[in-house]
Amino acid sequence: MNPKINAGYRAGPKIRDIIITPIAIIDPPLLNAAGLHAPYALRTVLEVVTDDNISGISEIPGNSAIDAALAAASQLIIGKDPFHLNEIRQVLTAYFGIETAAQRGHTPWDQRKLVHVFSAIEVACLDIIGKMTGRPVVDFLGGKMRDRVPFAAYLFYKYEGAGGQLGFGTDSAAQGWDAARQAQALTPDEIVAQARAMCQEFGFQSIKLKGGVLEPQAEVDAMFALREAFGPEVPLRLDPNAVWQLDTAIKYGKQLEPILEYLEDPVRGQHDMAAARKALKVPLATNMCTTCFEDILSSITLGSEDIILSDHHFWGGLRASITLAGICETAGRHLSMHSNSHLGISLAAMVHLGAALPSLPYALDTHYPWQSDEVVQGGRFVFEEGAVRVPEGPGLGVELDRVALARLHQNYLQCGLTCRDDLVEMRKKQPDWEFQLVRW
Amino acid sequence: MNPKINAGYRAGPKIRDIIITPIAIIDPPLLNAAGLHAPYALRTVLEVVTDDNISGISEIPGNSAIDAALAAASQLIIGKDPFHLNEIRQVLTAYFGIETAAQRGHTPWDQRKLVHVFSAIEVACLDIIGKMTGRPVVDFLGGKMRDRVPFAAYLFYKYEGAGGQLGFGTDSAAQGWDAARQAQALTPDEIVAQARAMCQEFGFQSIKLKGGVLEPQAEVDAMFALREAFGPEVPLRLDPNAVWQLDTAIKYGKQLEPILEYLEDPVRGQHDMAAARKALKVPLATNMCTTCFEDILSSITLGSEDIILSDHHFWGGLRASITLAGICETAGRHLSMHSNSHLGISLAAMVHLGAALPSLPYALDTHYPWQSDEVVQGGRFVFEEGAVRVPEGPGLGVELDRVALARLHQNYLQCGLTCRDDLVEMRKKQPDWEFQLVRW
Repeated sequence: MNPKINAGYRAGPKIRDIIITPIAIIDPPLLNAAGLHAPYALRTVLEVVTDDNISGISEIPGNSAIDAALAAASQLIIGKDPFHLNEIRQVLTAYFGIETAAQRGHTPWDQRKLVHVFSAIEVACLDIIGKMTGRPVVDFLGGKMRDRVPFAAYLFYKYEGAGGQLGFGTDSAAQGWDAARQAQALTPDEIVAQARAMCQEFGFQSIKLKGGVLEPQAEVDAMFALREAFGPEVPLRLDPNAVWQLDTAIKYGKQLEPILEYLEDPVRGQHDMAAARKALKVPLATNMCTTCFEDILSSITLGSEDIILSDHHFWGGLRASITLAGICETAGRHLSMHSNSHLGISLAAMVHLGAALPSLPYALDTHYPWQSDEVVQGGRFVFEEGAVRVPEGPGLGVELDRVALARLHQNYLQCGLTCRDDLVEMRKKQPDWEFQLVRW
Repeated sequence: MNPKINAGYRAGPKIRDIIITPIAIIDPPLLNAAGLHAPYALRTVLEVVTDDNISGISEIPGNSAIDAALAAASQLIIGKDPFHLNEIRQVLTAYFGIETAAQRGHTPWDQRKLVHVFSAIEVACLDIIGKMTGRPVVDFLGGKMRDRVPFAAYLFYKYEGAGGQLGFGTDSAAQGWDAARQAQALTPDEIVAQARAMCQEFGFQSIKLKGGVLEPQAEVDAMFALREAFGPEVPLRLDPNAVWQLDTAIKYGKQLEPILEYLEDPVRGQHDMAAARKALKVPLATNMCTTCFEDILSSITLGSEDIILSDHHFWGGLRASITLAGICETAGRHLSMHSNSHLGISLAAMVHLGAALPSLPYALDTHYPWQSDEVVQGGRFVFEEGAVRVPEGPGLGVELDRVALARLHQNYLQCGLTCRDDLVEMRKKQPDWEFQLVRW
């Protein structure tokens, strides 16, 4: 035996229990290239508990298939050391198998299991590690580079409506952003009004419009209306969600060049993205053409984008996102962040990651303003000048509000949704609507 | 303010002091493409001390320029939180500037400052983090994938001699590997004898010969002699240290294909490596053609190697090496490890990193058998079947032996060496010897 082994070492606590709670959170009728948001968005909250009763939490996009995958994975993870994330990843990879980019699906949200399940377990374990050591999660990603993480206003075309039980109805007593969140937004003026209300409430200093909804000229008009309203000092982005043809992207991309910070996924696939990138002077961002580590080599070879919009739920956790940041730096890409409808546990994880990134040239995406529910103690996060202060820990720095969790789980049981299906919701408004991989 | 911030959070301890101790360790007269090892190898031991008196240690290749750079860097790092490694890296990058691959130099050892200085500070900070939290360093690299990390026998052509004050003389009372370490090795039979003694002492199960010393046919003959002696079950590697011409590499590479696990740096530069790789069926490894993150893009484009031999002292620390592992996995490369003459602090760091790597297909390089000194308490590491058990912590799991440190520092003061210069040493034996970038 080695004489230098410290006799004082004791094995750490092990994972004793994993609790999976699907929840449904109120979501307004937001439009996107895949259809329409349902009245509730599904999330799954994970609690990982050690045998010395330290509890770590995480939140991922929810559906019944992921919940079942999490339940199966949990059986493999009970008894593991929460620090042994490499081993946990190996066990899950062996169980789920390597998932290819093709398994991601064509929707704007990712349908792979391993990355979601590992992300859920890793973030909860990092929360445990932080609580065990009295340090914030960001300290296990190399420590914070900034105290506040900036986010962008994320505008949506939408029907009038609040979501939830109100559905397409609205709460007439709502004021300020609460009222604006429920208002219709289908014209440039309505988009500008949405932007003004959101920026006033949250202080955002850059603006993104989820496009791919109306014909391209209408969306370009909305971007110019935003430019007119906010001036050149507010960076603008448009995300056509990969439903433009290459020539459409080049035609409207050239119009947009003078006013855009970046153009996100104008076309589908790395080849067309690379062609659009050659033709346009505006930087291209993606969360749809380069979506996983297996996509990186061809991204480098083709030169398909300038900015990768990562999502720790899709890229396999916070540490994998740090590796992705290193890859981006090495490959001359920038890294920023994608979002889906989410609550404060995911927001906290995004903020810890955003605080650790050596370079953060763009304000991150978040759907958070569109949500009104919360599942963490103390209620909803406060934004300061569009930024979120890094929770100071330990761990993620947020604790479950168990009353809220129970209520949101009841929402899940009662709403009857088991997966995200924006097509079904869209057909409630436009019965003959079809999803198209490339629309214009 | 955000209502969720935990009121119990207290700022962690800060770095109060950084102590730099250059040491000289006995090194035998080992031959390589750059000349001959001096009687002492220089290392620098770093101690980083927090204001609550937790001390972390590290060890890097030493020379007076690096020591001066460390001293200057220390002034920038005093007062920082040891968890804030991203920030420390940023501060040092601003101070030293971005270093290019060209600044690495043409010798087999790396001459850049930032990567060495940051590696030294990062490893010492990880040691502190481990001690603060009661966990081994490997736990801050994602946790261990294996309990023991395998190393390879690292053979050298050498003159007779022990190094140190004995210089080219030997200690006639030495036995076993102690005697073999001092013996001349210039012929295939002597190399086989060296391999037998080293493998018997340490239990190594794969063998590397540092080549680029004799004309290629002599080195090829030595490899076939090793194959004859050890049989096909012991993987073999040859490292001509980039001094073969491309046609030489192809000619002898083809002879060696049937018996090599991999061929290391047969030629100089990524272009010739890529050409050799196209011509040969044996995998190519490198620590000389792809040596830093800035080299990666062209490595991918050219396809210059199969295996990157990282060295955490050259790649900017243990966390950067984990990022490199992610890049290698993403780019279809394997990762293994390079070594220079070192003691147990570096060995411990290498073992923690090696234990964390998700994939470890090759036994790692180490010069450790060639050293007889040690600077950690409890004396020299014990190898079990060629592998080193992961120290169980906390931190690196090794503590400074201050008596040994003082003695090795006296060696440094008395030996008069201030930097590694294998050319000067070589000319003591062969006065007209010249270094050549490409020799055969």
